[in-house]
Amino acid sequence: MAVVSFQPLEPTMRGRVPAPQHRARIVRVGLLGLGNVGQAVVRALQASNDVLQARGLSFRVHAALVRNPERPRRCPPVPRITNDSDAFLRGRYDVVIEALGGTDPARMLVARLLGRGVAVVSANKALVAAHGDSLHRIARRRRAPFRYEASALAGVPFIGPFARRPLVGSLTGITGILNGTTNYVLTSVARDGVAVAEALRRAQELGLAEPDSALDMSGRDAADKLVLLLRECAGIAIDAASLEVSGLDSVEAPDLAAARALGGTIKPLVHARIHDAVRAFVGPAFVPAQHPLAAVDGALNGVCLDSRFIPGLFLSGPGAGPDITAATILDDAAEIAGERDLAERETWRTPSAMLPLRPADTPWFVRVASLNLKQVISILCDVGIAATRSIAGQEPCVLTSPADRARIDLAVAKFGAAGAGATSALRAIGDS
Amino acid sequence: MAVVSFQPLEPTMRGRVPAPQHRARIVRVGLLGLGNVGQAVVRALQASNDVLQARGLSFRVHAALVRNPERPRRCPPVPRITNDSDAFLRGRYDVVIEALGGTDPARMLVARLLGRGVAVVSANKALVAAHGDSLHRIARRRRAPFRYEASALAGVPFIGPFARRPLVGSLTGITGILNGTTNYVLTSVARDGVAVAEALRRAQELGLAEPDSALDMSGRDAADKLVLLLRECAGIAIDAASLEVSGLDSVEAPDLAAARALGGTIKPLVHARIHDAVRAFVGPAFVPAQHPLAAVDGALNGVCLDSRFIPGLFLSGPGAGPDITAATILDDAAEIAGERDLAERETWRTPSAMLPLRPADTPWFVRVASLNLKQVISILCDVGIAATRSIAGQEPCVLTSPADRARIDLAVAKFGAAGAGATSALRAIGDS
Repeated sequence: MAVVSFQPLEPTMRGRVPAPQHRARIVRVGLLGLGNVGQAVVRALQASNDVLQARGLSFRVHAALVRNPERPRRCPPVPRITNDSDAFLRGRYDVVIEALGGTDPARMLVARLLGRGVAVVSANKALVAAHGDSLHRIARRRRAPFRYEASALAGVPFIGPFARRPLVGSLTGITGILNGTTNYVLTSVARDGVAVAEALRRAQELGLAEPDSALDMSGRDAADKLVLLLRECAGIAIDAASLEVSGLDSVEAPDLAAARALGGTIKPLVHARIHDAVRAFVGPAFVPAQHPLAAVDGALNGVCLDSRFIPGLFLSGPGAGPDITAATILDDAAEIAGERDLAERETWRTPSAMLPLRPADTPWFVRVASLNLKQVISILCDVGIAATRSIAGQEPCVLTSPADRARIDLAVAKFGAAGAGATSALRAIGDS
Repeated sequence: MAVVSFQPLEPTMRGRVPAPQHRARIVRVGLLGLGNVGQAVVRALQASNDVLQARGLSFRVHAALVRNPERPRRCPPVPRITNDSDAFLRGRYDVVIEALGGTDPARMLVARLLGRGVAVVSANKALVAAHGDSLHRIARRRRAPFRYEASALAGVPFIGPFARRPLVGSLTGITGILNGTTNYVLTSVARDGVAVAEALRRAQELGLAEPDSALDMSGRDAADKLVLLLRECAGIAIDAASLEVSGLDSVEAPDLAAARALGGTIKPLVHARIHDAVRAFVGPAFVPAQHPLAAVDGALNGVCLDSRFIPGLFLSGPGAGPDITAATILDDAAEIAGERDLAERETWRTPSAMLPLRPADTPWFVRVASLNLKQVISILCDVGIAATRSIAGQEPCVLTSPADRARIDLAVAKFGAAGAGATSALRAIGDS
């Protein structure tokens, strides 16, 4: 018998009790930028007013620095909107939210604010990846909090915790989908069989991709996020310019069908193994169906994190979007406002090591037109690569043993010399 | 053409640079208990010494309070092992790690330490679920940090972040697998078709389940964790005694096979929807195959969290085990040691609302012996429940429209009156 016993429910009916009484603290907010994210921040402040008040916090937007003050905006009114950066910087703020994007003029403005001891919250991965160290030096010197939890996997608050917690922060591996646009595009290609360019066009029509998607499609946005996560979550600095970055132009629709036949799919990955050196790549890669990232579809983001002491973590959620980004920005601001002495905290995010970047050895997903499977396997064998799984047909397709990029490039050159047509060569990761 | 371009890698070769210079701070550690978790803490301190030193922290275990000082232990030696609690309490500690388990004498000892202003780190969900409020009152009064990140989903540091961040902490829903033993057992039943009792016996032989597994198998351990998460991550207190808790004895092996035929599986869940009331249950439930929790197998834990501002988060990782628990305990201790003014922080975990607990309306998974499918559907219909998916056969099986437990119990009684044999009635959740 497997009837579960009935346990009577006695609702306590006590209802909401008043929140604990804090002295409501006025938090003066300045906004750098009032575009999609800036407007979402102002809307989120209104929508979350009850929640923030319950924590004893009263956020007041004082001013916004914008390029064009006249532009219509979809958010509650901001008292002072100016395009004069000196006038903006004369204001008094407890926290300034940087929502400009890009490295300039964001870097100069953030540096000046931190230099005056003003807390800054940002979601700007390009800024932090390129200038995080110099901005942190200013922040530490002036004991000014500088946070950017929304800069990668915006909906999941994990960057701060990993930065502050030394054991879980002893990362040995990161594999993730950190760009929603490219994941949406590849998910559409996998589902509908359309070309990458067509899937991108549809995403742009739906507002799910920016009109200028070059940073996303080239892999540069994901690469900035990987650099940032290595720095924050693992205390590791790398020479970002040497990172292997491939864009979505390295994928064609038949690759997705072939990947499915090989028991997986193709996802826009960032991947780093960390030991004495970092072996990393950014770009579309084969992911086995049983890997948790294979199920992270559409605009969702996800990341697998392994640490020396705690392996096998997987986090997923909405990776970006103005409303999610705004909510996480406000949580950063609320954390700052709820803390008294932040200076000690900030020092914990300093990289503890600058590690060399080495070529990553991974399996590869290879699809070759106009050769037969036997020719493909034979050429791979010639350069010292084994096929671990294969599918024959007009465009034979194999998963290989681990190899670095130089070796696979050699095989691709030999395919060409043997008369091959188009060849796809994408990295692949293992089961977990 | 889809050959990705070769980007030459130039390893920086600068190697490890020295960690930033903090003044190494001696952290005096006391241990309450030196069982599996306590010994793992002492081992982890040794293994992570380099990592902690790099953060400027030098942990020194001074003493351990144990029941039997003579018992052999698998960990580096502890200077002072005593069974005299007064002698232990006379020691001077910066942080005491509570690794006793259970509510007594842990409650008294933790209260006395917090009352003296000593920071306490624990992984004891039973203690926190039952006495969290009174211990937090003492902690706040004495400005003593009290942390227990390892008490649920031990490997994933999310309790603290959700407690401190008001927007992501405005939870509207929690659905999770928070007990590794029962998940391991149900995963074995699903895979091998053995009975629950047999799968438990095997898990105990492998050391994956405690010899006394009553807390796990009854659902009480998971219920404590749900109460704790509602309190910490959502600021919601409920009357825990009224929570609907079912144990694994409500599942039989054929339920797992039938669940698979219905396109899902059965998992040991905690589930709460939070609005003006909390609708919650703890127990084995049907999970559709496409739900992220369906893939959380073996001893892994996972949780889906929805907040008013950030929906659709999913976190998974190792849920317990001495080494994982020890690593997270040490991260709590390191966070405490790295912060200066903690008192403000602690107040943020006070529940903001005591909400009534109401019966949960969910779909149900129903399997009935000795009736045919038509009879089963007809009886369900009589009590106002629709079948949304069904499988005929000797033991017909259906997924139903949402209903509360009273209504399904009525249907089960009517099955019995109509001559049914064994009936399984388990809750079910939707696709996400």
